[in-house]
Amino acid sequence: MKIQQATLHHLATTESTMDVARNLALQGCPHFTVVVADTQTGGRGRMDRTWHSDPGGLYMTLVLKPDMPAADGLKLTFLASLTLAQTVRRCCDIDAGVKWPNDILVKEKKLAGLLSEMQATGSRIDFVNIGIGINVNNDPARFEPGATSIKAATGATFSREGLLDEFLGALKTGLQNTSLPSVIQQWKTLAVSLGRPVTVVTPRETVTGIAEDVNESGALLVRMSDGDLREICYGDCFHR
Amino acid sequence: MKIQQATLHHLATTESTMDVARNLALQGCPHFTVVVADTQTGGRGRMDRTWHSDPGGLYMTLVLKPDMPAADGLKLTFLASLTLAQTVRRCCDIDAGVKWPNDILVKEKKLAGLLSEMQATGSRIDFVNIGIGINVNNDPARFEPGATSIKAATGATFSREGLLDEFLGALKTGLQNTSLPSVIQQWKTLAVSLGRPVTVVTPRETVTGIAEDVNESGALLVRMSDGDLREICYGDCFHR
Repeated sequence: MKIQQATLHHLATTESTMDVARNLALQGCPHFTVVVADTQTGGRGRMDRTWHSDPGGLYMTLVLKPDMPAADGLKLTFLASLTLAQTVRRCCDIDAGVKWPNDILVKEKKLAGLLSEMQATGSRIDFVNIGIGINVNNDPARFEPGATSIKAATGATFSREGLLDEFLGALKTGLQNTSLPSVIQQWKTLAVSLGRPVTVVTPRETVTGIAEDVNESGALLVRMSDGDLREICYGDCFHR
Repeated sequence: MKIQQATLHHLATTESTMDVARNLALQGCPHFTVVVADTQTGGRGRMDRTWHSDPGGLYMTLVLKPDMPAADGLKLTFLASLTLAQTVRRCCDIDAGVKWPNDILVKEKKLAGLLSEMQATGSRIDFVNIGIGINVNNDPARFEPGATSIKAATGATFSREGLLDEFLGALKTGLQNTSLPSVIQQWKTLAVSLGRPVTVVTPRETVTGIAEDVNESGALLVRMSDGDLREICYGDCFHR
């Protein structure tokens, strides 16, 4: 791959781009390093799930080392999912939306997923690694009924290299945007969950209600049947 | 050592309790695990400094795994330095104060230092490790003219075990305190830098002015000679 936007490590296959990226980050790789694999043997999703990584998809981890307080780290993950949805909409003419916290959906089916890992010393970010799996020309519905790909949604194949270049360029521009609230504000314009009945599973509990809003800190606000508004900082959201 | 408050790992000597604690955290040790060493051969301070760790001092790293958003992680470090200063004041009758971001001073001399390392997945904290070096019965002024110990300040020796037990008990209670702003508010009552001329060295610049305040996010506000107020999220603060 020839990508001008980033320091690129392109691997034919690896266990997980997250692990490769973590080692690179700890060894001092530059800001905006990208590890791309054509396939992964142990791809990871959020909440310790497996991410099927068959040929034709785009599997990557982006190493960001911004000069930024750890409290702002979440901005990067919201910015990445927003930018990815916008890129896919623009380049592939797909009606992609974002699902809290970090999925990209097309017609209720999962097109892409993101997860992030941060390390900070004191209040300063050392690195934020953002893992992204995008179903491009592969057929993920064979493994997961709820998944789709750009090819399945459009009937056409797309250049993974072209998509990556577009995404990285847009993300670089987006990184100039300095506040989490403004990123969340834009993110909400593409959000598919708001106003809908959801079940949110957190490490502590399962919350059922209407997804009312995402606040300035990135938390999901769920209106429960007793009228209470619950603020959920992390969890898995299911549409009902 | 017999400590009831925590899962304790007591080592005669180690390179750095931070490294031992990091491995324990990654291997799934419980919340409130403490690694204590009588001496360290490669003790680390903030900004990659060496922390001299001769016998008689208390060198430890606390592994915290709170169910808490990463944005709140900084609360733990401020809470730890506040609690340590309060513990030393109470147990040793020393006029200890806190210096932004994480030092404990007595009469302008450094009695203790703290540093923290956080790992988060998505918006959730995996662990925050807080390293603490306290000069108790040792004589750090031999290595660093700006350092002191409890023994040097009081003329008496103190039980490191007793101090640790008092500190951990108070910290456990303090962890019930849920907001960063309220911790900062208490922390400021013991702050020694506010209202004074300081030089703050950050990775990007050196800022000179009057330390006017610490805001609700834990940033130092420095009034510069041109009247501008600079918000500094991380750096090293020197009294002039």
